[in-house]
Parts: sequence; structure tokens; C-alpha cells
Amino acid sequence: MAERKATELMERIVSLCKRRGLIYPSSEIYGGINGFWDYGPLGAELKRNVKELWWRSLVHHRDDVTGLEATIIMHPTVWKASGHVDTFTDPMSTCRHCKKLVRTDQVWELLAEQPWGQAIAKLCPGGQYQRQPLWQWARGKGIRLAPGLALICNLDAVLARLDAKAAQPGTLPQTPEQLFCELATLDPATTGQVTPCPHCGGELTPPRRFNLMFKTNVGPVESDDNVAYLRPETAQAIFVQFKNVLETSRQRVPFGIAQIGKAFRNEVTPRNFTFRSREFEQMELEFFIRPDEVVAQLAGAVARLADLNGAANLTQPQPNWGWEVWHKYWVEERIRWYESIGLPRTSLEEYWQKPEELAHYAKATVDILYKFPFGTQELEGIAARGDFDLTQHQKTSGKSMEYFDEEAKAKYVPHVIEPSAGVDRLILALICNAYTEDLAPDDKGKLEPRIVMRFHPRVAPIKVGVFPLLKNRPELVRKALAVRDLLRPHLTVFYDDAGAIGRRYRRQDEAGTPFGVTIDFDTLGEQGPELQDTVTLRDRDTMKQERVKIDELLPRLLPLIR
Amino acid sequence: MAERKATELMERIVSLCKRRGLIYPSSEIYGGINGFWDYGPLGAELKRNVKELWWRSLVHHRDDVTGLEATIIMHPTVWKASGHVDTFTDPMSTCRHCKKLVRTDQVWELLAEQPWGQAIAKLCPGGQYQRQPLWQWARGKGIRLAPGLALICNLDAVLARLDAKAAQPGTLPQTPEQLFCELATLDPATTGQVTPCPHCGGELTPPRRFNLMFKTNVGPVESDDNVAYLRPETAQAIFVQFKNVLETSRQRVPFGIAQIGKAFRNEVTPRNFTFRSREFEQMELEFFIRPDEVVAQLAGAVARLADLNGAANLTQPQPNWGWEVWHKYWVEERIRWYESIGLPRTSLEEYWQKPEELAHYAKATVDILYKFPFGTQELEGIAARGDFDLTQHQKTSGKSMEYFDEEAKAKYVPHVIEPSAGVDRLILALICNAYTEDLAPDDKGKLEPRIVMRFHPRVAPIKVGVFPLLKNRPELVRKALAVRDLLRPHLTVFYDDAGAIGRRYRRQDEAGTPFGVTIDFDTLGEQGPELQDTVTLRDRDTMKQERVKIDELLPRLLPLIR
Repeated sequence: MAERKATELMERIVSLCKRRGLIYPSSEIYGGINGFWDYGPLGAELKRNVKELWWRSLVHHRDDVTGLEATIIMHPTVWKASGHVDTFTDPMSTCRHCKKLVRTDQVWELLAEQPWGQAIAKLCPGGQYQRQPLWQWARGKGIRLAPGLALICNLDAVLARLDAKAAQPGTLPQTPEQLFCELATLDPATTGQVTPCPHCGGELTPPRRFNLMFKTNVGPVESDDNVAYLRPETAQAIFVQFKNVLETSRQRVPFGIAQIGKAFRNEVTPRNFTFRSREFEQMELEFFIRPDEVVAQLAGAVARLADLNGAANLTQPQPNWGWEVWHKYWVEERIRWYESIGLPRTSLEEYWQKPEELAHYAKATVDILYKFPFGTQELEGIAARGDFDLTQHQKTSGKSMEYFDEEAKAKYVPHVIEPSAGVDRLILALICNAYTEDLAPDDKGKLEPRIVMRFHPRVAPIKVGVFPLLKNRPELVRKALAVRDLLRPHLTVFYDDAGAIGRRYRRQDEAGTPFGVTIDFDTLGEQGPELQDTVTLRDRDTMKQERVKIDELLPRLLPLIR
Repeated sequence: MAERKATELMERIVSLCKRRGLIYPSSEIYGGINGFWDYGPLGAELKRNVKELWWRSLVHHRDDVTGLEATIIMHPTVWKASGHVDTFTDPMSTCRHCKKLVRTDQVWELLAEQPWGQAIAKLCPGGQYQRQPLWQWARGKGIRLAPGLALICNLDAVLARLDAKAAQPGTLPQTPEQLFCELATLDPATTGQVTPCPHCGGELTPPRRFNLMFKTNVGPVESDDNVAYLRPETAQAIFVQFKNVLETSRQRVPFGIAQIGKAFRNEVTPRNFTFRSREFEQMELEFFIRPDEVVAQLAGAVARLADLNGAANLTQPQPNWGWEVWHKYWVEERIRWYESIGLPRTSLEEYWQKPEELAHYAKATVDILYKFPFGTQELEGIAARGDFDLTQHQKTSGKSMEYFDEEAKAKYVPHVIEPSAGVDRLILALICNAYTEDLAPDDKGKLEPRIVMRFHPRVAPIKVGVFPLLKNRPELVRKALAVRDLLRPHLTVFYDDAGAIGRRYRRQDEAGTPFGVTIDFDTLGEQGPELQDTVTLRDRDTMKQERVKIDELLPRLLPLIR
């Protein structure tokens, strides 16, 4: 039930995104292209704002982080050194029946999304196989079998087998997966071992590894010598240019290099709207720190998390912090940032990866998750990667990645903390978080349902709507245009003179515009001089309107959007 | 001579770009990758500023332009419809001798860049072949033959042939090209017909067409069914999403859609630093207008360029403008914009393509050129493309691209004016334009050469340097940090406390920082209360310093950088 509600909610959000020009399917007139999405007029502004705020908070407002903008196509050896050529793979199977490709590790997840997969799951309530409901279901009481499943499923044989098992305690299917295997296969020898195709129930081939990097060739003739890859992450460019930045930027360890840019992953099954797409954008920071032993040599003691009294200590970076304190610092910094752009702390989760989940080079990884309607999923990973990446590039290129620390009089390969965020999934989180349905009075005061996008003013695509009360009164229009021109150099303005004022408000509510300014006859001084050059300022969320002097609009609004 | 100077100047600029963190070769530690360049800390800021100013001027400061951010990989049919799959090709030859690939239409240009190509050119002064200088040159008086040329060039045979021709007026080589052909070939039957390799002088194969689009495959299995391309331009995405934007943005024709993003061209010979690279960024506007016949129907007469009295009329768009007026309007708008970010009008040229140079669908194209040290080259093309693109996509997709004009009560496919600019070449123009060598006094007042990057404050990567006079006086440092924190929310600040103040100024001059703020003992009130809380504000270009109150810094600086 909750699941259906979540699916319906996502459908309404996807529909709003299309209708309001936030997100369109890429190449829609040609039937779209799976895993690629375009940002429309509002979406492009929302994305620009988010990237700008990230960059401002990390690069402009700090002395210890500097920017970089590297190419998407790099020398292919970069990806050999980083390990991506050899290990950036997913397991993939082909269905022998319907020939579709499936990510083998996602089969059960995909299955659970199919209506018939959900039906099967219901046949094992509490891990108890029940013959009667299965029988009813299979005989067609309202639930259609998947076409492929119907073809290969010999139900009488399956039921006979299950009856036989019922005689031997412990051998009956305990889970939907096990039951599905019973249904999907005719061959008792492989029962419970065959993975079913989530699309048709057919048999999948054993998994093969396939590399997620998009391949291309640089130069006019395709050959093995000039293969190149579209970067699957922006991070490696930062490691590759570490020495150049160090030598030209006057930075000293600890310091960071930040980059925003496109990355590409040839996902087998892109899904959840823009959450997992094939072309996406990342915002990555590599923050280089002293190895603990250098800190110890310098400060006598390494500040460890256990030594510090709570989070209060974690706002002012200290040179004698050990890696685990830096790591925790960045986790907290990043969560603070998400809160600053309007994601409530309660919508976020902090997930510390278990030792067995960590990549072999990682000392610790924290995922910051957002509670999407389709599940709680990762927005950002913050990994303590040690000196793995710089050392790999040093080994492969033969170029030193060492840093000479003048204060410590020591030469070392810096360690790194990597806060790595996905722009598109953050945009999706902001959209899900902003989406609200409530009631608002129409022009006659009757309450009607409205959709409001409660974007934080900082990220809202349009900051203020400017409306002359009537479009056929030149003096109102002239004044409204003057207000538009006053505000426009400082914030994004949408000027709208079409239709009843209530409908214009409603349109801006759906666009998530936090403020509305209406120029009426009072503004012109027709009700007396005390209201002259005042306008109504309307708040999107409370729908309250107040009278504000035109001169006071900028001083009032600017602090709210910065 | 002028050419050598230009080459030396470019070398100094490239070196500064590396040294100051403007531009690095991509993947430099792996030997680089031809045609790919990264932007370092200063370059990334410069590029951000330029893109932001373009977007602000076109999208935020106008009611009639809206933004879009589409994917780099689109449905492959997009490029079939646009004509790119069939015709976006360059002619390419292979050298039979050195096996290098060469763009056949660039041979003579590339040749002219080789020292021996230049030497040959000198042998035909004023179109006159002179036997003696050729002889002297060929016998090795200080100029080395290209290795391949030496191998295949039988000089005695060539000279004998030339002597024979001298007897027949009009048959002697008149141009470096003709002379080169005489030198490069042993076979008199093909003399003057063989194109020489610009690298070695060897014989090139006849040209083949090769497509400039980077190819990849979407989905795990490479097959002809899932070939896709990296977009070679951002424009097509705008046409493909035209209807979606129209339906969701409340725009009416005439209106425009703007996009900034990466594009890729698999150039055979990337060259001139970042000017012609394989991965680059574009800023494109498609401005949709009424066809002239619709304007005529509506207004009775189409406003033509010839009817208007000079440029003064061209600043306020009018609905009854014909396409040629809209085209001229955008040419002037764009030139104004280049001037607004610091490129003097005298550094720009406006080139109206001749009828025989136009693409078959274009009604008119104007190139805006910049006088680079390596030649006067295109920054932006402004094309009147008629309804070609929308019509192509309508035909291929079967989806209507028609617009219903409520005012004209007419349905039509809009026509389009396309101002299309390259970000990277603009950045290079701004760098070349800013680069200046002059003399400045050192700390002892002695004049020393300095490099100043005279970036317009609007585009300068860092807006203001903040310097405490001495780093070992806590009260100066404290005050300087307060000034930094005051300015930082509004403009990019570089805080520097290392070294003599003169050297800190010099560093910011090289970075192109227009303003420097120094906090000294006067600031602290040590010379009396009247100077308390004042700082010196230094101008990069004039090097003049004046005393300014801290409170006045922002009101003073902000208007200069916006």
C-alpha cells in the first residue's frame, strides 16, 4: 500500500517535471534514449543554482580549496592506473528466452517491481509456502502470468514437486526467490539454482563481467591503439593534475581541489527517473591531508575522533587532525550544506559502510542518503581513500606525486578525503522534497487543490515573479516593468501579465518561485500618497501578502537567496 | 619577422597559462592527449565567469530567452536528421611515406607552418621562381630539408625540369604550392597534381571523407544497433526539444532557447593551443522568429535592413522585423557583449560570408573574428538558418514542429537565427588580449619587467587580493581576515600574506586580479583616527593606490565587476 502510494507520488512528480519544464526525456521526439534526461528552462536554472552554491561554499568561501575543470576524455592510461579498466564492471546475464540483458545482481530487486513478481511475493507470507493461494493465482484469478513464465512453467509438475517437498520439513520454498525458482524452471536438477529473468521469467545465462565505461576512439581511424573512455567519474582528473595545481596555486597540504562535471556510466538498467542515468553530473572534492605519522611527528600527537568532545570541535579545521577526524569533519560539513539548501536533517540518513562493504583501499566511507519515495538512496559518498590514487598514478606514470611539507620537513604522498556528490540525484531529491499538494483559495475565495514546489529560495529556479495587476493599464505595466528592471540585475525574475492574478500566483507556486511582487493601483498612489511606490510581496508558502516599499525589495530579498 | 614575433608571443602566453594555472595539457603525466586541455584554478574561474555573463545577458536579463541543458549523448537519429551522419566530414589523406594522417584541405596551411615550408615560400617572392636561391637553399645553406622530402626529392631532375620550363613562359611555378609539387615528386607525369605531406614531403593518398563525430555504444554489447555519437554541437538538442520548451515555458515566437555545454569533434589535426581542440564548450542560442510572409500578413510590411536608419534602430526588437534585421540585430548584440567583457572593438572583425561560402540552408552567416597572434580567427558564427533544422526533425521524427501564432492566426515552422560561440576560443582571446608586458617598480623603486593580465574586472578569475602588510603582526592579520570575510560573500577574494607586499602585488598582476586591498598600520589607527578603518586600494593597471574606507569597498567594487 505504502509502495503503491510511493509509485503514484513519483508518477505525479515525473509528470510535473515534464509539464513545468524541469526535466524532459532526452531526444523525446525520437522515442527517447534510455538513461538520458534533459533539463528544461526551470530545471536548467535549478541545476545551475545547486552547482553554484556547491562551488561557492567549497571554493570561493574557503582559502584551502581550489577549482579545476578537466576534460571528459583523458589519456586511457588514467583508467588503467585507477583500476577502472580492470575492475569497473557489473555482472550481466542474457535471458535465454526473451534475449534481454539483465544486471545479474539486480534480478530480485527488478522482480519485486513487476506486478507478477509482487504477486509471487505475496504467496510466501511470513516465509510460509501456501499451496491453495498459489493454485488460485496460477489458475488465473485476476493475475496474469508473465508471458515467458507461462511458456516455460509447467505448473502441475511444479505443484507435484512442491507437494513432495511438503512431506520433507525444511525443503519447501521459504522466500519469494525460492518459490520463483520452483515456478520458473522445468528441470528439477537445477531447481533453486537458476536465476529467473525479471522480465519474462526465462532462464538467465551465467553472469559475465562487463565494463561500465563508454568507449570511443580518438583520431580518425578506429584501432586498439587509440581507444579512449568517457570518464566514469570526475575524481581521477584531480589526482592526475595534483602536481600541476600544487605548483601553480600556492596551496599547502591540507588543501582540496574541487571539480564539477559530466561523467558517464553505461548502466545495464538505468532506473528511478534521473536517479540512475547513463550521463550524469558530479561534484567532487579531493581534500589532501597529512598522513597520520607526519602529524604525529609534527604535533607530537594526532587528534583522534575519540579525543574530541562532540561536534562543536569539528567546525574549525586543525593541522594536527588525524584522517578520521578530517573524515568526520567533511561528513558534517556536507550534511550542513544539504541543510543549507533546504533538505531537512530528518530527510537525510548517514550510513557508515561496514568493514566488509569497503573498497579495498578505503579506510572508511560514509554515504549520505536521502529518503526518496522509491527508497532511501545515496546522494553522496565521503570516502577516506588513503594515498591509494596518488600512489597508483605515481607508479603508473613514473612521475612523483610527493609533496614536501616545509613545516614538517617531510616528503610524502598526501592522503585524501573524498566527498563525492551526484548533481542529478540531488536535483531529484530537491524536487521530491519540494513537491507539496495543499489547498489554496481561487480568485473567488474557494479552496482548490494546488501544487507547490517548496524550493529553498537559494535553489529556486526563479526568485521572484513580477505582476502588473492588469495588463491593459499602461501605467501599471510601465511601473511593473520598472520593478522588473530594478530586480533583474540581482536575481532571476519572471514577468507575467497574462490572466487573473490568482492564476499567475498558482503558476509560480508550481514553478517554486518563493516571492511574488504585484503592482496595483495603490502602487501608483491612487489610494493616497502613503501607499505610493509600495507593492504587495507574496510569500509562496504562507500565501501571506504584505505591503513593501519598492526601494526595500532588494535589501529584503537578497539576504534570503544568498 | 612579424610571424616569428607572433609565435614567440604565443609561446610566452602558453607558458604563462601553465605557470599560473590557467590551462594545462590534459593527462600531462601520461604524456598528454592531443587536442584536450584542462583548466586550472584560475582558468576554471575565468571560464565560469564568461559562461555566467553570457547566460545572464541572454537568459536572465531578457524575457524572450529561456535556458536548456540537454545531454551530450542523444538518440542517433538526431544526427541523421541534422545531416551530421552523412555530411559532417573532413577530407583526409595518409602519407605513403611517413604514414601520418593529414587533413587534405589543410595541407598548404600546415606546410606554411613548417620551417622548410616557409623556406620554400620565400623562393617564390612575388610569384617569381628564382633558380639561384632555390639552388642555394637546396644545397644546404643553413636550411635542413625535411627528412622525407630529402628521400624522394631528386633535385637535379627537378632543376632540369624547371630550367626547361623557364624556356616556356607561363609554365614556371608561380606559387609555393606549385614549387613544392615540383620538389616533392619524382614523376613528371603527376607534377603539380600530387599533394605533398606537410610533415615529410611524401606523397599523400587521394582524400577520403571521414566523419568528425566521436562514436560510442550505449548498452553493454557493442553492436550496430546501439551506436551513438558525442554531440558535435549543442544546437541540435535545442531543435529536438523545441516543442517541449514551447509548451512548458509560456514563450511566444519570437523567442530564443540558450544552451551552454560540451561538444566533441574528432579533429585530425587539433592546433593553435586551445583554439581547435577535440573537446570544447559551446554557448549557443537558437532564436526563433516569424517567417517574413507571416510578418507581412500581420504588419502589412516587413521591416528590412535597408528601411532602417542605422544601428540605433536595432536595439529594441520589433515583431515586424524580417529575418535580415533580426540577423543584423544579433550580430550587433553579440559584438556589444564581447566589448562588455573587455575585447576592444578594434580587436574584432565582422566577416559576412560570401554566397558561395554559405551552407546550403543558410541565408546569411556572419563570423565574428578575433585578431589572435596566430591569425584572425572565428569566435562566433551568427547564421540565419531559415526553417531548415526544425523541418528536418519534423520530417524525420514525424512530430509536428509547427507553432500556432495567435496574433497572426497562422501555423508555421519558425525560422531561426543562431548565434553560436566557442567558449574555449573566447577564453583564449581574453587571455591573448589581457597579456601585457610592462615595467613596474620593485620594493626598492627600481623598474622591473612585469607581466600583467589586464582582464576586464567582470571576467577576472579573482576580483580582489587582500593583504595584511606584515604576516607576523596579529592585529594586522586579524583585520585583514575581517576584510576578507566582509568581501568574500560578494566577490572572489585571494588572501595572501606571504612575502614582500610588492611581490604579492606582482603575483596578482600575473593572475589578472584587478584590485588589491592592503591592511596596514594606518588601518589600525596608529597614525591617528582619521585613517582608522581605511585601506589602500590598488588598481592593477595604473598601479595607483588610494585610501578607501573599509565600508566603502563593496559599494565601490561591486558595480565594476557586474
